[in-house]
Amino acid sequence: MNYSKAGVNIDLGNKLKSTIPNIVKNATRPEVLGKIGGFGGLFKLDTSKYKNPVLVSSTDGVGSKLKLAFKYDTHYDVAHDLVNHCVNDIIVTGAEPLFFLDYIGMNKLNEEVFNELLLGFSDACSYNNCALIGGETAQLPDLYAENEYDLSGTIVGVVDQDKILDGSKVIEGDYIIGLQSNGLHTNGYTLARKALGDNLVDKYAGELLSIHLSYFKAFNACRQYIKAAAHITGGGLIDNIPRTLPPQFKAVIQKKSWAVPDIFKHIQSAGNIPDEEMYKVFNMGIGMTLILSINDVNHCVAKLSEHIPCAIIGRIEKRNNNVVLE
Amino acid sequence: MNYSKAGVNIDLGNKLKSTIPNIVKNATRPEVLGKIGGFGGLFKLDTSKYKNPVLVSSTDGVGSKLKLAFKYDTHYDVAHDLVNHCVNDIIVTGAEPLFFLDYIGMNKLNEEVFNELLLGFSDACSYNNCALIGGETAQLPDLYAENEYDLSGTIVGVVDQDKILDGSKVIEGDYIIGLQSNGLHTNGYTLARKALGDNLVDKYAGELLSIHLSYFKAFNACRQYIKAAAHITGGGLIDNIPRTLPPQFKAVIQKKSWAVPDIFKHIQSAGNIPDEEMYKVFNMGIGMTLILSINDVNHCVAKLSEHIPCAIIGRIEKRNNNVVLE
Repeated sequence: MNYSKAGVNIDLGNKLKSTIPNIVKNATRPEVLGKIGGFGGLFKLDTSKYKNPVLVSSTDGVGSKLKLAFKYDTHYDVAHDLVNHCVNDIIVTGAEPLFFLDYIGMNKLNEEVFNELLLGFSDACSYNNCALIGGETAQLPDLYAENEYDLSGTIVGVVDQDKILDGSKVIEGDYIIGLQSNGLHTNGYTLARKALGDNLVDKYAGELLSIHLSYFKAFNACRQYIKAAAHITGGGLIDNIPRTLPPQFKAVIQKKSWAVPDIFKHIQSAGNIPDEEMYKVFNMGIGMTLILSINDVNHCVAKLSEHIPCAIIGRIEKRNNNVVLE
Repeated sequence: MNYSKAGVNIDLGNKLKSTIPNIVKNATRPEVLGKIGGFGGLFKLDTSKYKNPVLVSSTDGVGSKLKLAFKYDTHYDVAHDLVNHCVNDIIVTGAEPLFFLDYIGMNKLNEEVFNELLLGFSDACSYNNCALIGGETAQLPDLYAENEYDLSGTIVGVVDQDKILDGSKVIEGDYIIGLQSNGLHTNGYTLARKALGDNLVDKYAGELLSIHLSYFKAFNACRQYIKAAAHITGGGLIDNIPRTLPPQFKAVIQKKSWAVPDIFKHIQSAGNIPDEEMYKVFNMGIGMTLILSINDVNHCVAKLSEHIPCAIIGRIEKRNNNVVLE
């Protein structure tokens, strides 16, 4: 008996490990010390850039969108999904992404899939000016079904303490801008797949596989005007916007202010899903919301639009910590 | 159709989410800002403590030891395994752990298992003076078998740049101290389970489930004398010690200088595994190696022994970047 006969291919593991530095060479930053493959990834924090640096971190997965990646061989794309999801989670606090680490748990080490995932992580990190600094790939033949895997990713960023977006500057009358999503992003796939069934999943595969957008560049374009921001993930607009508001305010959203993408309509009609459930599970076409003063909203819409379609979708009113959908 | 009928229990998810802050309340540090549940975890870095702070991060899993956790209901223990594994990975660079994030991908949300995992993460973080600052739990009924899950964890620590243990101070004649492991820790379980078979796995379950030790406190006891350190994980002594040595040196290890725990002998004999394979897959009883000057080795053995059994197991000699097992 040896490790290889037990289902763990150490030789292929070592071979792939040796190719990682080349695959991820663009996903770096000047602050990275040493090379990939040490016990820990090393990142020198430039403390001269911050008065009171606060590290902001988040861990996420891509959920059952992976089942579609297995079916349609879109491993490179789900790697982007994961990085972009993580990036969006921390930029809403005001943070700049610094570095990312990935975890891949897979049935058997598949060279092609592994390389696509790594290249996807690397390209997405590079787009978001973030270093791919470490990761772990586990061969778990007894845990994952053949040709399947799970992914998780962790991002670490930094923000100066007085620039944290905690919603404290939000006032009555502020406007809510919605940044367009690209489809489901990475939420609600278990429901969507069940509602659509195999035939409709095939029919709408293109829309279902759209990559979770990164709002990194759009956000940076008007960062200094943003008072609060929410990444619209599980829980939809209903659950996520209130996380960014002081308790004395509510968000009033005009549902008709943007066009809900067709894919959501197909899911709703195929599964006969109530409106309320749709808005609690899916982003419904809005991937991020930003709260801005009435004085800044128009020039910011113009700036944001250079990166991503967006619209004013609501306003801040006094009262409970609620979302009202009009 | 709704999310719950599709197999994702949002209500239980929200209920459990609301209990997290209470479960993990001891796994915190004064630098943590805000509360669990924001989009990102916030950790204020005390820059007055470092001239040139370098962030050190690592992501890991616990591998197929999880299969034993499912069988014997030892979820609290594998959560410790994960945190301790991550802690050991970064302390060998000289870093102090700051915060940890977990990922749980599971079939169905099981309240009892979830609570045990969270409490395990929390207690282990607390032991290692590390904040549990974030995490993600994904319900993936189509990816994981019933009652199964996978875990990954990410740790971030900090070290002052001039205190990074890069092995550059290692010289010929230095001594290698081995810190005792507690069994397999988190490596080689796929081979061990196959070699032993179900009956012997049952017989030796106690040893197989021993928790991956954290060397945090032992390490701190003689941190200032340590020139290089290796966490003995996959690849064993053979692959891991050279990662900490300058290329002009080799490690010469006396195999007879410590007693290999019985569990490794049982695995080897049941699976008829060659000696060389054993030393490349398993830690064989040594969970961490430290390299120290001849002047420091004896008083450090005494100090380390207050925390963990240890022994001088070898020395540094000139030549290739190899390990010699004598």
